[in-house]
Amino acid sequence: MPTPSPNESNSLGELGEFGLIASITADLTADDRVPVGPGDDGAVVRIDGDLVVSTDTFVEGVHFRHDWSLPHEIGQRAVAAAVADLIAMGSRPVALVIAFSAPGELAASWAKQCTQGMKIEAAKSGIALVGGDVTAGPVVTLALTVMGDLAGHPPLLRSGARPGDVVALRGRVGWSAAGLRVLSRGFRSPRVLVEAYKVPEVIYSAGGEARSSGATTLIDVSDGLLADLGHVAAASGVRMNIERAAFTLPEPLQAVSAAIGVDPWTFVLAGGEDHAFAATFPADAVLPAGWVRIGEVSAGEPAVTVDGAEWEGSAGWDHFHRS
Amino acid sequence: MPTPSPNESNSLGELGEFGLIASITADLTADDRVPVGPGDDGAVVRIDGDLVVSTDTFVEGVHFRHDWSLPHEIGQRAVAAAVADLIAMGSRPVALVIAFSAPGELAASWAKQCTQGMKIEAAKSGIALVGGDVTAGPVVTLALTVMGDLAGHPPLLRSGARPGDVVALRGRVGWSAAGLRVLSRGFRSPRVLVEAYKVPEVIYSAGGEARSSGATTLIDVSDGLLADLGHVAAASGVRMNIERAAFTLPEPLQAVSAAIGVDPWTFVLAGGEDHAFAATFPADAVLPAGWVRIGEVSAGEPAVTVDGAEWEGSAGWDHFHRS
Repeated sequence: MPTPSPNESNSLGELGEFGLIASITADLTADDRVPVGPGDDGAVVRIDGDLVVSTDTFVEGVHFRHDWSLPHEIGQRAVAAAVADLIAMGSRPVALVIAFSAPGELAASWAKQCTQGMKIEAAKSGIALVGGDVTAGPVVTLALTVMGDLAGHPPLLRSGARPGDVVALRGRVGWSAAGLRVLSRGFRSPRVLVEAYKVPEVIYSAGGEARSSGATTLIDVSDGLLADLGHVAAASGVRMNIERAAFTLPEPLQAVSAAIGVDPWTFVLAGGEDHAFAATFPADAVLPAGWVRIGEVSAGEPAVTVDGAEWEGSAGWDHFHRS
Repeated sequence: MPTPSPNESNSLGELGEFGLIASITADLTADDRVPVGPGDDGAVVRIDGDLVVSTDTFVEGVHFRHDWSLPHEIGQRAVAAAVADLIAMGSRPVALVIAFSAPGELAASWAKQCTQGMKIEAAKSGIALVGGDVTAGPVVTLALTVMGDLAGHPPLLRSGARPGDVVALRGRVGWSAAGLRVLSRGFRSPRVLVEAYKVPEVIYSAGGEARSSGATTLIDVSDGLLADLGHVAAASGVRMNIERAAFTLPEPLQAVSAAIGVDPWTFVLAGGEDHAFAATFPADAVLPAGWVRIGEVSAGEPAVTVDGAEWEGSAGWDHFHRS
């Protein structure tokens, strides 16, 4: 894919709202779960059982930068992050709508490639793009709403953890945060970390895996492992303890941490946006392939400890309180 | 409700992402269609039949201005406009999610009152607020996704109009556009027009009314009557003719038009955002109370004419091509 500058000659203003919509919807494939796709006042979607819905916003300069990510990477990342929430509820991804706002001066090719990236990740995750809204705004803002269905199953909530459960993790943690730190310092490598930041590798099968092994809770690690497990502990009214010995510190993370003088555990325990999945399972459950036991649940005042002690470092991310 | 300045002392940054979420969700009432509300990775919503989904974005400086509208008015208007799309599909409003982005310097009270306005209009329309996302951004941006259900009915699409059908309208057209023009010129009256711009009066019963009288199409007039009927004509492959004699030009519209030297029909035929509903009905249908016959459908190359001739004025709105 060629790399357009965000301000090349053919602008979004020239293409127009309806031109962009036409380019997005031109190659959508038919999907029997979507009796009515884009083009009417709303889309019609066939849902099996209860609906799960979640929404996520990506703002230029806050969640992405034009000089750090290609437009299709930004689109892919946005969809991956949004769909991860559906997986974390134990639902099957069904339908996606996109609210896209951008300045009229934005290159039309940028907008098209961003939406192309969304479609690439949508196809990977099995979700169908069914509609959206295109409007003017001072910076590129993508608000994605994703819908899934539960097909008769109960949702996998944060409130189901019980003392004695084990805590397990599926996927990488800390890579995206380390990649972001690398970019923030003006570097482009280690590439594996930068790539992990640009397009997280979401394991879309994790919800089904967790359910089939009797998971009592499931969560998407988006704010940071300790912060997100903290939500589970609070919702379930339990304590959790995480054992660092359960993790291997990957070489690129160690290298970056050493180079910039940061404790690598800050990335692992507090770095968000890899969209790994953390779950609790009954003590006697056989963990599904790919899941790693990282700790256990006990009774007591809700808290998450690390090797039995309170974690002193940063725990996670508040969008108005930057750490 | 007191009027906060958008930049008063207690800021959104001080309140924090989770503080705002807590204030929004604190007084949500239980709803048996919402087994799981805000607070997990996603909400769980009970849907009767097929799902209808639509998304709408409202950007500070593009769709609203702090000096023209109070925060609760902006919230009300956003919900009214979004839910109108569900009505226009013939669906019952069920669930709403909000993606809210704003600068950290925004007054916390502004954000709270805006979301309070959303809840007021949500209650009016019967939709439940089930979740959202709060994030930082350079200007206030509200992206609302609304979901409705069809309860076994087919959706009311744009493609069902047939030659011989009558075209009918429910609600006001031109008021919001005239109110916006008044504000743009630095005036605050006629108040009825300004109020119509600030909080449109959406007739949430219009979908059920149209369906019960056998409507063949239904649409929400958001871009302008001719523009939106043009979408119906194109989707149905028909011509439509609108008769100006069917309309009464309301006095405040006439007054504003005379004062600023604009043809009042520009407001009526091209002014959007009142969120009136236009429908087509079989020729022998008895129109529901409140619906006014404004024209008819005929065979031929898709187009919308006014009193048998092409309309020379502005037809509607493209978000990147301002007229």
